Amino acid sequence: MITEAVPSVKPVGTLPPVTFLLPFVPGSMRILVLALLLAAAPAAAQVSAPPAAPAVLPKNSVPAFGTMWTFDAPPLEYWQARYGFTPPEGWLDHVRLASVRIPGCSASLVSANGLVMTNHHCARSCITAASPPDTNYQRSGFVARSPSDEKKCPTIYADQLRSIEDVTPRVHQGITARSSAARVAQRDSIIAQIQGECPGGGHEVCQVVSFYQGGRYSLYRYHRYPDVRLVMAPEEAAAFFGGDPDNFTYPRFDLDLTLLRIYENGVPLRPAEYLRWSKAGAAEGDLVFVVGNPGSTGRLLTYAQLEYLRDVEYPGLIASLGRTVSVLKEYIGTDEARSRQLENQLFLAQNSFKAITGYQSGLLDSTIMAQKRAFERDFRARIARDPKLRARYGDAWEAIARARTEQRSVARQARWYGFGGSQLLAFAGLLTRLPEEAARPDSLRLPAYRGPGLEALRKQLAADVPVDKELEKLTLAASLTAAAKELPAGDPFMAALLAGRSPEVAAEALIEGTRLDDAAFRRTLMEGGSDAVRAADDPLLTVARKIAPLSRPIAVRSMRLETIVSANAERIGEAIFAAYGTALPPDATFTLRISDGVVRGYPYNGTVAPYKTSFYGMYARSAEFDDQRPWQLPERWKAARERLDLTTPFDLVTTNDIIGGNSGSPMIDRQGAVVGLIFDGNIEQLPNRFVFTDAVARSVAVHSRAIPTALRQVYGAAWLADELEGKPAASN
Amino acid sequence: MITEAVPSVKPVGTLPPVTFLLPFVPGSMRILVLALLLAAAPAAAQVSAPPAAPAVLPKNSVPAFGTMWTFDAPPLEYWQARYGFTPPEGWLDHVRLASVRIPGCSASLVSANGLVMTNHHCARSCITAASPPDTNYQRSGFVARSPSDEKKCPTIYADQLRSIEDVTPRVHQGITARSSAARVAQRDSIIAQIQGECPGGGHEVCQVVSFYQGGRYSLYRYHRYPDVRLVMAPEEAAAFFGGDPDNFTYPRFDLDLTLLRIYENGVPLRPAEYLRWSKAGAAEGDLVFVVGNPGSTGRLLTYAQLEYLRDVEYPGLIASLGRTVSVLKEYIGTDEARSRQLENQLFLAQNSFKAITGYQSGLLDSTIMAQKRAFERDFRARIARDPKLRARYGDAWEAIARARTEQRSVARQARWYGFGGSQLLAFAGLLTRLPEEAARPDSLRLPAYRGPGLEALRKQLAADVPVDKELEKLTLAASLTAAAKELPAGDPFMAALLAGRSPEVAAEALIEGTRLDDAAFRRTLMEGGSDAVRAADDPLLTVARKIAPLSRPIAVRSMRLETIVSANAERIGEAIFAAYGTALPPDATFTLRISDGVVRGYPYNGTVAPYKTSFYGMYARSAEFDDQRPWQLPERWKAARERLDLTTPFDLVTTNDIIGGNSGSPMIDRQGAVVGLIFDGNIEQLPNRFVFTDAVARSVAVHSRAIPTALRQVYGAAWLADELEGKPAASN
Repeated sequence: MITEAVPSVKPVGTLPPVTFLLPFVPGSMRILVLALLLAAAPAAAQVSAPPAAPAVLPKNSVPAFGTMWTFDAPPLEYWQARYGFTPPEGWLDHVRLASVRIPGCSASLVSANGLVMTNHHCARSCITAASPPDTNYQRSGFVARSPSDEKKCPTIYADQLRSIEDVTPRVHQGITARSSAARVAQRDSIIAQIQGECPGGGHEVCQVVSFYQGGRYSLYRYHRYPDVRLVMAPEEAAAFFGGDPDNFTYPRFDLDLTLLRIYENGVPLRPAEYLRWSKAGAAEGDLVFVVGNPGSTGRLLTYAQLEYLRDVEYPGLIASLGRTVSVLKEYIGTDEARSRQLENQLFLAQNSFKAITGYQSGLLDSTIMAQKRAFERDFRARIARDPKLRARYGDAWEAIARARTEQRSVARQARWYGFGGSQLLAFAGLLTRLPEEAARPDSLRLPAYRGPGLEALRKQLAADVPVDKELEKLTLAASLTAAAKELPAGDPFMAALLAGRSPEVAAEALIEGTRLDDAAFRRTLMEGGSDAVRAADDPLLTVARKIAPLSRPIAVRSMRLETIVSANAERIGEAIFAAYGTALPPDATFTLRISDGVVRGYPYNGTVAPYKTSFYGMYARSAEFDDQRPWQLPERWKAARERLDLTTPFDLVTTNDIIGGNSGSPMIDRQGAVVGLIFDGNIEQLPNRFVFTDAVARSVAVHSRAIPTALRQVYGAAWLADELEGKPAASN
Repeated sequence: MITEAVPSVKPVGTLPPVTFLLPFVPGSMRILVLALLLAAAPAAAQVSAPPAAPAVLPKNSVPAFGTMWTFDAPPLEYWQARYGFTPPEGWLDHVRLASVRIPGCSASLVSANGLVMTNHHCARSCITAASPPDTNYQRSGFVARSPSDEKKCPTIYADQLRSIEDVTPRVHQGITARSSAARVAQRDSIIAQIQGECPGGGHEVCQVVSFYQGGRYSLYRYHRYPDVRLVMAPEEAAAFFGGDPDNFTYPRFDLDLTLLRIYENGVPLRPAEYLRWSKAGAAEGDLVFVVGNPGSTGRLLTYAQLEYLRDVEYPGLIASLGRTVSVLKEYIGTDEARSRQLENQLFLAQNSFKAITGYQSGLLDSTIMAQKRAFERDFRARIARDPKLRARYGDAWEAIARARTEQRSVARQARWYGFGGSQLLAFAGLLTRLPEEAARPDSLRLPAYRGPGLEALRKQLAADVPVDKELEKLTLAASLTAAAKELPAGDPFMAALLAGRSPEVAAEALIEGTRLDDAAFRRTLMEGGSDAVRAADDPLLTVARKIAPLSRPIAVRSMRLETIVSANAERIGEAIFAAYGTALPPDATFTLRISDGVVRGYPYNGTVAPYKTSFYGMYARSAEFDDQRPWQLPERWKAARERLDLTTPFDLVTTNDIIGGNSGSPMIDRQGAVVGLIFDGNIEQLPNRFVFTDAVARSVAVHSRAIPTALRQVYGAAWLADELEGKPAASN
């Protein structure tokens, strides 16, 4: 599934909180995840002028930098040359306004009454929250009988992109300092100022978005709809048929759909723009567009950055996610209550594990790496030939390479010297560090403790969240076991944590003995400051006091090196943007893009994959696994078998350019009508993170014919099918 | 499909005729195909004693040399250790006698009335021959309503293996000469003598089979049943559902079945031994055996031999088969008559193309090659440590490597300097060479012209076979075009053929102008000898006269180098057999083997493939390709849809060790009951030709439940289902 690994990506300039979404990833890893997501958000900005006249990109071939076009720079000539398509007047505004962004995902308005279509896996938190105590809508599905039945989604809001404004000159001109830290402060300040100038009024949300690694800045204005309600969600067994094994693959048989509805002033929204439904759907060879919010790509990364990801960051991340998955699966076992509590967490961890393993396969592919190296060599040669360009950008690649080399030398410590592996240990780390960091000038603090970050951390500490100590013991033991294998004998970090014990014994003692699961206790300590924390006789705090001074110098050094990398990445982004302009789409930024593509099967498994699957296929795959989970058919589908035309198209594949964050994106045809609902990419698409290809990489969508058919024949929700298809509402 | 690329493999010691089955492969390539098939048939034999005590192979792990066990050396300890299975008294004799070999394929007796089960694709020639003029049973299928309806198969006979006798000492002791050629003559003479001692009587067929590249010889005695009749064959669209794209892949939905019946004295055979039917079939994890005749493997080949295959032989063969496929497809187009005439040829060419492309993928896999290199290095080191072994075998690997290096230097000429690309050009070559070769002493002739080969060639020339001149022009032009790209400018071979014309113009002129399509003309020339051939004013003969003297020295040199390779391969085979004994099964020889394996799904396409497919899946894949060929459902299957339980298992996969020639093999359980019918391997299995692995390589079989279900519900042939299941025959 191509949701964002961390569902909420913050606009550039504000620091993401240390998220609780990957609680078993060691501290430094958690930051890594965010660093990956925020690759487009440099820590420092540099001001300089364009280096050269825009280069010409081929207009009629597959662009290696992909097709995630921004709405302020649609590639009209390229579309005309390649497909003979020029969007009619108003078409682009119409599809932009019919699209909405929800936390971590994409979505679209699909009826005159504010119906919103997204993926089942994008609304998991809502579906769980809406479930009554005795029912689990994840398992049973939910179908409102009428609008009055619709359930509020406390965690979901919808942002509609109203306008885009280029603010690059203003941001670049406002950055005048020389030191990286001061430049960051200046940049953040200008961005805050620009964002603050938004008229607002409660429903206006403004974000300054950085493109081309800081080569360009745009102000994105959204209208936020905070009242979003659950209308219909299939059973997880139908939405996520095939589960983790089939995730990121095709052929696929998933109804990964949730229908939501936007309310305004307590009544369904009557949107000015919404997408019409294509009853016929798309056929092989058709041009289709995907409109959504791809989270992040790494197509502008330098070769040294890719090598570092491949050799250091991804292996650590994959190992960490693998531990999380196996601990969660073991802990859940067959326990229904634990399953309900942890299923979303397990889904996220498995999804990230498979996605990052796929990204890594791209970095391990010598053809892809050779292509990246060739592009970089050519581009650097071009810079080197012009004395002015050489002076301005020539050393950026080497600077990054040197920083990455130094980072390799401290990678093991950077990975482990922190408060990872346990939520309670993370609390201990925060309590220990907060007074110390708060006492420093803002710019000298560790990044998470700067500006509004400090207050966010305080809120996290104070919040009354339940902690499962049994699970904590398992995750901490797993983390310590892994650390013990990587760190040398006698390592001071391990000594502090283990104190001669085995990982299991140490984890048991530390978690059992701590009182940090009590939020009141944490609040007391936080209010008491350094003295209270020092005085508390708590085993985790004792350990945290030993770790903190080991960890801080490594964190500071890593931070310094990251600043070098991002400052030079910004220079490279500027050079690339200046060379190619908008003919080369910027890396993904979890903002609205439109990608062109074609419906097309592909060579697979020694044969060919069809461009579409069928309902037959779902019954087939279920029968072939003896109706066992995750291929067990929901009862509704078993009962509907005779009513269904099993040849109905179910899912389909296209060459559109998508990545995590695009989940829930509408797929539309030339007329702007919905022909599909994006929910995944095939396994071959994952390396597209670094180089776009369309030979075998495919986006996977629910076919537009499957949705009303299932609503009518399986879910008894003809009123919703009618609403989607624009038929007059008879009974609601 | 895992039929043999060349259906009839001759026993060692007799030379295969230059086959007409791959008419568009250049001459030297044709011989290559046979050379590959006959890798186990060395041209020279060497006599020497075992080098060392047998080494111990692990009893409980996957053997890299596979599990194609001979019936005189079943690995009883290994089976007991790995599966806790020891065949009961008589079990092995029973399954051996219930198995039969048919041309190019395997088969088994499956009823008390002589019913024989094999694959549809093993009986194509019979199905075509049995079709009345106005019907094509390939398309329509054929179902006898009763035994009286059954149709004679003129091209099929069934050989039942009655006994195996080790004749190694006799063969080795009979070879005393020093020169390779003389040794070959001695060996052939001893083999002919041993085979001649068979009591015979018309139905006894004896073959001396060479194992371990000549390290061991066995006398295989068969009873031949010449009267085999067609009982039931599905439509090709059901038997070969998915066609060439799905060939060699899984998941699969094929009823690749033909039922034949052996008759004796005009009535159905009542065999003493036949296989019972398993109604339940096999489930995941079950131990199963495949009993059949694998054609050839290359697991004992040296690293230099593999490199030569990879760099020289396979690329040429793949290119040649690719040309054949595209010429045939273009020529057939939508012409129904041409399709009927050439469909078997197209099938064979496509099948070989895909198979050899898959073998080549193994040779291009660095992991597999590293494994081969490591085994060879270790084994050579072991030989080198013992002075006696070193003296006897130490230089064999280098001798092969040197010969292969020299062969590379003449590979292009060896590939093209012949009479390939056209059947008529091949006739011209034969007519030109025959008088010349016949005049030489036997041992100095080109191999194809030696001994009984001469007479076989004369018969080919004299036979009244129809030749399609339009197709001949296309194939010759394609061949000349390819040759012109590979051979240097001014090459004398090209000059002789093209004489300054384009390949198309030359082919048109040569084929249009020749009279060699007239068998009477050929016979006249043949009888007239050299003078008549020289006097004939035929453009192809004129060309052949120019090519022959260019070709012969290259052919002689190639032959000499092949003799060096096979003589040294035999020494290596001896050393390996002496070291490992029968604990290491010999390379495949198109003789009866029994392979153990387990029913098991596997990781595939980013997810997992189920161990079985279902009837649902066939309807699914058809719907997903809009019921277009080769996924078009036969009418019978469309009509039967409502009657069928679509969850019925269709095909299944196992870890058994099979290769071309195993097509039609029965798959049996511990009780010896039929649980499947082997018809293919997945694409991942093709590299097993060189190293056996079972991580993702799988054998594909029709599930035993699919066959009676389809017979009853789809084909209205309950009487056959009853016969298979051993039910009392009610109405026949």
